[in-house]
Amino acid sequence: MADPIQQLTAALARLPGVGEKTAQRFVFFLLADRTGAAREIAHALARLADEMSLCRQCGFPSQGELCAYCSDPRRDGGLICVVQNPQDVLAIERTAEYRGRYHVLHGVINPLEGVGPDRLPIRELLARLDGVSEVILALNPTVEGDATALYLQRLISPAGVKVTRPATGVAVGMGIEYADKATLAQAINSRRGMG
Amino acid sequence: MADPIQQLTAALARLPGVGEKTAQRFVFFLLADRTGAAREIAHALARLADEMSLCRQCGFPSQGELCAYCSDPRRDGGLICVVQNPQDVLAIERTAEYRGRYHVLHGVINPLEGVGPDRLPIRELLARLDGVSEVILALNPTVEGDATALYLQRLISPAGVKVTRPATGVAVGMGIEYADKATLAQAINSRRGMG
Repeated sequence: MADPIQQLTAALARLPGVGEKTAQRFVFFLLADRTGAAREIAHALARLADEMSLCRQCGFPSQGELCAYCSDPRRDGGLICVVQNPQDVLAIERTAEYRGRYHVLHGVINPLEGVGPDRLPIRELLARLDGVSEVILALNPTVEGDATALYLQRLISPAGVKVTRPATGVAVGMGIEYADKATLAQAINSRRGMG
Repeated sequence: MADPIQQLTAALARLPGVGEKTAQRFVFFLLADRTGAAREIAHALARLADEMSLCRQCGFPSQGELCAYCSDPRRDGGLICVVQNPQDVLAIERTAEYRGRYHVLHGVINPLEGVGPDRLPIRELLARLDGVSEVILALNPTVEGDATALYLQRLISPAGVKVTRPATGVAVGMGIEYADKATLAQAINSRRGMG
């Protein structure tokens, strides 16, 4: 069996954005630390595994069967916002603009990384469309996000449900000159009448 | 008590170079992961805490009382290389140039971060000088590393032990034009005769 340092390095290197070198730095930090950081992380990890799971309806992390959004009766059940990650839900919640429910894909279709539609909870999304009037595809405006949105739109539209995506364009408070070419082109093509 | 997500986010944010945002990304990754990464990390952390400690002589991580370097009789006990981190030991070992022992400070003197000499295992280093002919201060050539090296040199030299530091200069295989100003100045001042 690998020695404890190698074993923990390999385990931590599974975290997103963490390579071998960074993982090793974490391990040596934990070894030299005298304030119990290792035990604290281990305990919090065990608690997460024991107490948290994903909402069986929308996939957002939850301490019960249904998450806070799915179990909130004041939320508009006729509106579903599809996102890539739970972090996107938190970002949208911070705007206080949205009062519908969510559906978290935990990824997007990405053939290069071997993620096909069958790896995402798309069947679960389609099973929720009864009584839904609009699905907002709030996927990132990237190649993969756009492709996934198109794929979902083709499955959802035939059910007579309106499908929308958030607008893309120049960021609020940001100078036109600093917007990248693709964003600015989209912003000009999607220009809106004033007054 | 904080909910499990907040608790683990706070615990992971204690790792070096990990902020609140990165820690949150780790947590959401672990929540969505179905391959048992969380349990794997928790288990490896527990093993680390149970089986590993720091060598009581040199401070390098060890499964026993003495690390692999301190317990190796083929190592030259008359030579001690003082380093800032365990990673430095691994880097020096990769050169296969050094056959002495080590002393790991787990830091350098850094008044701005509240690290005084009393927070480093300097007494332990001085207690090891019996029978030692040379101490190599392989601390990083930074303001803090230089200051710590000077501090240690003043304590070690009176014991009649030779104190050295690794040379600084232009990196091997690197163009002169790409060396930073301070490095190049040092390299010219420390120029050596040829042939």
